[in-house]
This record gives sequence, C-alpha cells and structure tokens, in this order.
Amino acid sequence: MSLKDYTNLTLHTDDYEINMMQTYFSKKMENRRAVFEVFFRTMPFENGYAVFAGLEHVIDYINNLHFTDDDIKYLAEHGEYTPEFLDFLSHFKFKGTIRSAQEGDLVFNNEPIMQVEGSLAECQLVETAILNIVNYQTLIATKASRIRQAAGDDQLMEFGTRRAQETAAALWGTRAAFIGGFNSTSNVLAGKSFGIPVSGTHAHSLVETFGHDYDAFMAYAQTHHDCVFLVDTYDTIKSGVPNAIKVAKQMGDQIHFAGVRIDSGDMAYLSKRIREMLDDAGFTDTKIIASNDLDENTITSLKMQDAKIDVWGVGTKLITAFDQPALGAVYKMVSVEQSDGQMRDTIKISNNAAKVSTPGKKQVWRINKQSDGKSEGDYIALSDEDPRHQDSLYMFHPQFTYINKTLTDFEATPLLRTIIENGKLVYKMPSLVEIQAHANQALASLWPEYKRQMNPQDYPVDLSKKCWDNKMNLIESVHNYVQHLNY
Amino acid sequence: MSLKDYTNLTLHTDDYEINMMQTYFSKKMENRRAVFEVFFRTMPFENGYAVFAGLEHVIDYINNLHFTDDDIKYLAEHGEYTPEFLDFLSHFKFKGTIRSAQEGDLVFNNEPIMQVEGSLAECQLVETAILNIVNYQTLIATKASRIRQAAGDDQLMEFGTRRAQETAAALWGTRAAFIGGFNSTSNVLAGKSFGIPVSGTHAHSLVETFGHDYDAFMAYAQTHHDCVFLVDTYDTIKSGVPNAIKVAKQMGDQIHFAGVRIDSGDMAYLSKRIREMLDDAGFTDTKIIASNDLDENTITSLKMQDAKIDVWGVGTKLITAFDQPALGAVYKMVSVEQSDGQMRDTIKISNNAAKVSTPGKKQVWRINKQSDGKSEGDYIALSDEDPRHQDSLYMFHPQFTYINKTLTDFEATPLLRTIIENGKLVYKMPSLVEIQAHANQALASLWPEYKRQMNPQDYPVDLSKKCWDNKMNLIESVHNYVQHLNY
Repeated sequence: MSLKDYTNLTLHTDDYEINMMQTYFSKKMENRRAVFEVFFRTMPFENGYAVFAGLEHVIDYINNLHFTDDDIKYLAEHGEYTPEFLDFLSHFKFKGTIRSAQEGDLVFNNEPIMQVEGSLAECQLVETAILNIVNYQTLIATKASRIRQAAGDDQLMEFGTRRAQETAAALWGTRAAFIGGFNSTSNVLAGKSFGIPVSGTHAHSLVETFGHDYDAFMAYAQTHHDCVFLVDTYDTIKSGVPNAIKVAKQMGDQIHFAGVRIDSGDMAYLSKRIREMLDDAGFTDTKIIASNDLDENTITSLKMQDAKIDVWGVGTKLITAFDQPALGAVYKMVSVEQSDGQMRDTIKISNNAAKVSTPGKKQVWRINKQSDGKSEGDYIALSDEDPRHQDSLYMFHPQFTYINKTLTDFEATPLLRTIIENGKLVYKMPSLVEIQAHANQALASLWPEYKRQMNPQDYPVDLSKKCWDNKMNLIESVHNYVQHLNY
Repeated sequence: MSLKDYTNLTLHTDDYEINMMQTYFSKKMENRRAVFEVFFRTMPFENGYAVFAGLEHVIDYINNLHFTDDDIKYLAEHGEYTPEFLDFLSHFKFKGTIRSAQEGDLVFNNEPIMQVEGSLAECQLVETAILNIVNYQTLIATKASRIRQAAGDDQLMEFGTRRAQETAAALWGTRAAFIGGFNSTSNVLAGKSFGIPVSGTHAHSLVETFGHDYDAFMAYAQTHHDCVFLVDTYDTIKSGVPNAIKVAKQMGDQIHFAGVRIDSGDMAYLSKRIREMLDDAGFTDTKIIASNDLDENTITSLKMQDAKIDVWGVGTKLITAFDQPALGAVYKMVSVEQSDGQMRDTIKISNNAAKVSTPGKKQVWRINKQSDGKSEGDYIALSDEDPRHQDSLYMFHPQFTYINKTLTDFEATPLLRTIIENGKLVYKMPSLVEIQAHANQALASLWPEYKRQMNPQDYPVDLSKKCWDNKMNLIESVHNYVQHLNY
C-alpha cells in the first residue's frame, strides 16, 4: 500500500471531521449555515508581523474536492458510516464561500486571516487541510521575510530541499520563501511549477570526481557559461580560490565568472581573504556566495563583522522554520444556524483569558493614516459594520481596554477578500512576482518599530465596541449555563 | 502556474545536480561508476539511536524517475543545456543499485544508512530527493520512538496533520510515527494509503453547534456506536464530564462509551478528577484521552504526577520534530571510476576532524553477542571485508583509537541490504505492521543504557582497521596535494 496521488486530498482530513459530518447528516443538520475563522494566537519567531501565504494551494485543494469511489469504499469498510451518508459524500461538492487575506498580506495574531462560510458539513471537512497548508506556508513566508530584513538588498537563494520536511514542504516552502523576499530556489520542480528563478552550480562531488579543484573547475567552465565554483572541498584559500581564478583567467571571455561559493569554515575571515584574492586578480565583479546553516541571526552577525558576502544561500533554518517549526493557527466556529433558521454566534471558553475565541462573523480592517499612509493598527469588526462610513474611529486594546485612541485621519481597507463564492472561484490569483511586490508594499507602510528583528513593538489588533460587547455577552451566557447545571 | 502533480518527482532535485550531469555528459563521463553514501553526523534529539524510515517513498520515487517532454521543454528554456544532453535526459532511466537499511532498523551517526552505486549521472540526480525523504521520515520515526519509550504500553495516537509542514509531511510523517511505535493516526488519507488504523471523534465545534455539551454528546451517541466525548469546550468538570456520563447512562448498551478527551487545562489534576467521576459512575473501563502539545517530556512528567491518562494524542511536537526539525543527513561520494577504469576512493576534507568523510564503498555490520543476542556495536568495513569469516573482531573508536576491544563471542549482520539492483526492485517491502515489529525487535536487543531519554550512552560505531587505514591514507594524500600547490 502506498501513496500514489496527492492531487485529490479529499481524505486528507482528520477522522473527526467526517464523524461530525455523519452526525450532522443523520440529524438533518448538514446544510445548516456556519462560519469558521482561521487565526493564530502568538506571532511566529516573536516577529512583529507575519506574511500570509498558502492561498494558492488552498484554492487547488478546494477545487479538487470530491470523494472518489475508492474513497467511499475505504470509508464504508473502515468507519461506522450509514449508506445514506456515504451516498451523500459521493455527491459532495464544496459550495461554500471563502474569504481570505491575500498572499503577501501582513497579518497579525488574534485576527481572522481566512474565513469559511458554508454548510456545517463542508466547513468541517476542509478544516484540517486548510490549517495544514496555511500554517506551514505563512510560517515560511514570515521566516523568509525576517531573513530578507537581515540581508538588506543582497541576493537570497533558497537551498533547503534536502532538509525540508518531505516533498511538499520543499516545493511549497520555496514558493513561500519567494513571497517573503527570496530571489531564487535550487529546486528545479519548484522553478518549473511556480516560475521561480532557479540557481545552482556544482557540489563537492564534482571536485572529488576529478580529484583536483583545477580539473573540476575547468571541466565545469568548458560546459557552462555562467560559472560559480565551490571552493572549499580540500582547502579554500590554498587550492579552491587560486584554482578558480586560474581557470577564470584561462577561459577569459568564454565564461562569466559569476562567483565562488563557500559552504564551511569561518565565513567572516574566509570571505575577506577571498575578496582580496579576487580583487587582486581583477575579478572585482565576481560575487562571494555563502551557505551553511544560515539564518537571520548569522547573516546579521556576519554583516556586523563586515564579511564580504554578496549572496546568501539559505537552507535548513528557513525551510523548516528551525527555531519555531509550527505556527499553530486554529480554525474556530464563530457562528452557526439554529433550528429556527437564525444565526447564533459561538464561543470556545478557556481558563486562559487570551485563549477565549472571539465570536461572530468578522472583517479585519487595516487602518492607515490617510495623510501619510502609515499603519495605525487593525480593527476587527462584525461583518455588518463598516468603518469607512464613520468620521472617527475609537480603537481600544481587547484585553487592556484602557489603552485606546480615537482616529479621524484614517482610511480603512478590508483584509479579507472573497476568494471563492458559493463554490466558484471569483478571485484572480496574482503572479508570484506580483505577490512578492505586494508584500514589499505592505512592509513599506509599516513603521520600522514593528519590523525590527528583536523585541518589535506590538502591532495593535483591536476589536470594535460591538464586537467586544458581543464577546462579553457570550462569555456571560456560557458562565450562566455552567452555573445553572445541577450535577 | 501551480503544482498539480507530485507523482513524477524527477525535477524535484537541486539545479546543481543537473548542471553536473551536463558537465559529465559533455566530458563523456556520465557513465563512469560512482558510489555515494547517506549518513548523518549527530544523533537527533541527542537520542541514543535513530529509527530508519523513508525507504518506501524512495522506492516509489526511483521507480517513477523519467523526464517528461514537458520537463525537457522547461530545461531547454531555462538552463544552458546542450540539445544532445537534453536528448540524453529524455531517454534517462535509473539503472543503478541501491543498498539500504530497512525501515524500522536502528541506525547511528557516522555510518552509511543508504548507498547508491551507479553511473555518475544517475547518482547525482537522486541525491536531493533521497535526502529530503530519508531525513524527514527517519527524524519522525525516531521522535515517535522516544515518545513510545515515555508512554510505555499506553495507546499513542498521531494527531499532527494541521500543524505538519504541508501535506506530504503529514502523510508520510504519520507513517513514520507508526514505524516508531504509534498505534493510530487521525489522518484518513494516511489510513487509506498506508493501512494505518484511523482514530478520531469530534471537535469543540460540535458542542458549539448545539450550544450544550449534553445535546452535542447525545447527537453524537445517536449517530455513532463508539463514543469518545470531548469534554472541555465550556467547563470540563462542571459540564463536560457529567454530561458525558449522563448521555452514556441514558444510552446504555446502545453505545460503547470508549472515552473522554481533554485538550486543555491542567491534565494531571483534571485526569484524576475525571477518573474518580467515571469510576463513581461505574465506567471503570472508559479511557481518558489527553491531547495538547504533548511530547516525551510532558508525557513523562504527567506519568510522574500519577496522571490518570490512558491514551495520548500527540500532534505538533511529533509531526514537526519540534525540538529539532531537521536531521541533517548528507550524501557523500566515497568512490568513483577513473579514466583508466579503476575505482578511486574519495574524501571531503574539513577543518573539523569529525566532519571528514570516510572514503570507500562500505558495509555496516551490526555486532551482537552470539550468546545473548545483545548489541556490541556497529562495525564499518570496506565492502570486500566480511567479519563473518573472522574468529575474532578488533573494534576501536574511529577518533579515540585507544578505546578498543576484541570480541570472540559475536555474530555480524549486514545493515545495508540490496533494494534496487541495476534499476530493478529486488526487495520485497514488508507490511507496515511488520516494519513496526522489526523496530521493536531491534530495540529489544539494545541495552537500556542506549535507550534512556536523557544522556544515553554512545553506541559504538567503529571502523575496521582496513577502512581506517584507507581514510588516513587519503587524508595524507590530500594534504600532500594541497601542500604542493604553488599559488
């Protein structure tokens, strides 16, 4: 038995989703309307912002949702499902509505970044895969953006496939890295699938095959125009770099001596020595490329040591989000239709105040100053509110309510856009280059205090008065419910 | 542009592999024989052993290797490849030989766990995907085995899909978790694809839909025979558990009240209170299931607090290998054919002594005492050595050579088995249940000192004298090469 086909991910869901669908179906509740929202509670890497990604894969997933005969057969043999329910599944189509942040949007903790509205059955089915996709891709786009902040305008290459957590992470992860600001990938299939520029040269094994740096570099130079030589197989300074220079001089205009790469050793020291050697030989435009467990911290440190590195190849630490390998976004019901046809907002209570969910179908409004376009914070309102019709906006902290401000010079932009409406795709996916540019524009409107690598200022994510009142009322009603139980 | 098909992973490789293939092809070296070996340098999680996994996916990958017309078109448009080389790729078939540890085998640092022997071209092409697959799956099987050691004989359920690093990690990761000792998964597609038992009940949203624990549990009980109720939506002790008991009493024999699940709060305290409540109500066989950021450390701690938890649902920390999300195995050339047709062993030098690769095509021999079957260590020998023909075995530490022993009461079993021979699969994959049993048997022969969770003893991985001499000679010859360069 094995896994031959990832295209149809309909069964890529938690068993309990299908079990709940059975209950709803048997109780004739499967078509009741519900609204679920995706959000995360803490900022990844203690960063001041996150970069949203994963929408393209979510759209692919939703568009391919259908139970094959084989899927139904498996469920019939392995679950306690009724024939009527299995027949329902065999005709299942996703007819719900998905609203979402766009890829490249900056998003923050405790605000909805995606919203699924539809029948109870379809809303449950898609929970697991949506979280699986959005959690990972948003995590990697955010990590990539942190590395981009550290690297300034230097070129960043994604090198992580061999250390990624299986194949899909390598492929979608490098796409997310591009959204977060990377320039290229080493993964050829990602290049083909997503149109990302592909970069790569040769490995230590090429040098070992020839047994000498010179012979290996010469063979490579005779078979490629653009040449980056890996110089640390035997001895970087004594053999690798001088042999690279020798080959470049001998080949002259026949090649473009684009760079040398170092993958081990003291990068600060080596890069300075190599820069001198290249400059002395007249190769002032030849770049120095470094790779070896790099991340935003090592890049910052190397820059502070004035390392002469032009291009950074980043692998493991990026593609696995090594310092925090999971985002932890959740998918919570916020409203559900009752037997009388009315929607009722729902809440999940927790002993931890910050973990109590915010009920009601919502929209996130990004509030910028109208005069300079700079960010003022996010304003979460119930879906029937529209701050664009208000002259002033009262914003307050949802836990420390005495922290508040009233704005008059503001513009409000909705974060959640309609992507799929009643099962139909109504959103035109931008190109990957457009998505990267969109992220850059979003970052430009964010104050530097939110963007620094360590201890950034908390970006305000506030609730509207109506949204806050609604939450307090529901907390109160749950307390009443629990207190009046007689056990 | 998007990623529609993961079945053909031929381009799922680093760009430099294809660039090197071009060089070898143009230099008429593409068919020279080479041997590469996969190994990792440090034990994941500072564990005393690792559990090998990933072979099934590697076999699938190798069996599907071929460049489609579309792949060739992409390469022609995006790389600097010659038409002759592209034609060569379009006819490419993997004809090499792969030897490997079997899934479920215990493996250790600095020993080959997989070996690829074939043409230079094919050996390079497969590097990236093999590492991507083996690194992740071995990491997760090892993490799962650590959790199994902590959980004793308790049931372990894999719950991590929503936090996994994209889809393939969720699916192959839960298979690896099963190899490491888990009992079931929540992922239905993994259940279908790999035959893993699937488990799951309902989410908080079911309770929120009904607005009361009682109504939700009753609806579930009326539509499912096996019932595990999630009791912490509003208030575990005041509402969740008493309502679960009430429904179970009312339904009587119509349901199997298998358990209650808690997903938040103080697990030690809650589980003891719940156990009392269940026992008092006569449900002494009803299990308590816990989930919420569990791993081997929290499970050990809860057991020490005498928590009354019977079943553990483990997600994020397992499926992402949270405390060390990458294994770091590498793929190094150890031998390559020269222009005269002779094989020459190869080495990668590093300033760090422990990072110098061990040259030569090798076999790993697992040495156990013949009298009691217990592990004595691993003995790495060149492929033309066979310790089974020796009366005594001299084993010494490859860095601290004064640590040594001579064995006479021993049996030697080869770790690397032939999986694919000249492109043909010659290995019969065991079933997943057999693989799990194989891992358990292997663990039984390992001394407890290697299995403890913290500060395990280092398992000996020694080199044969011939292998060690070969390495020293090659280090010497590289030093000579570097010293005699005149730059």
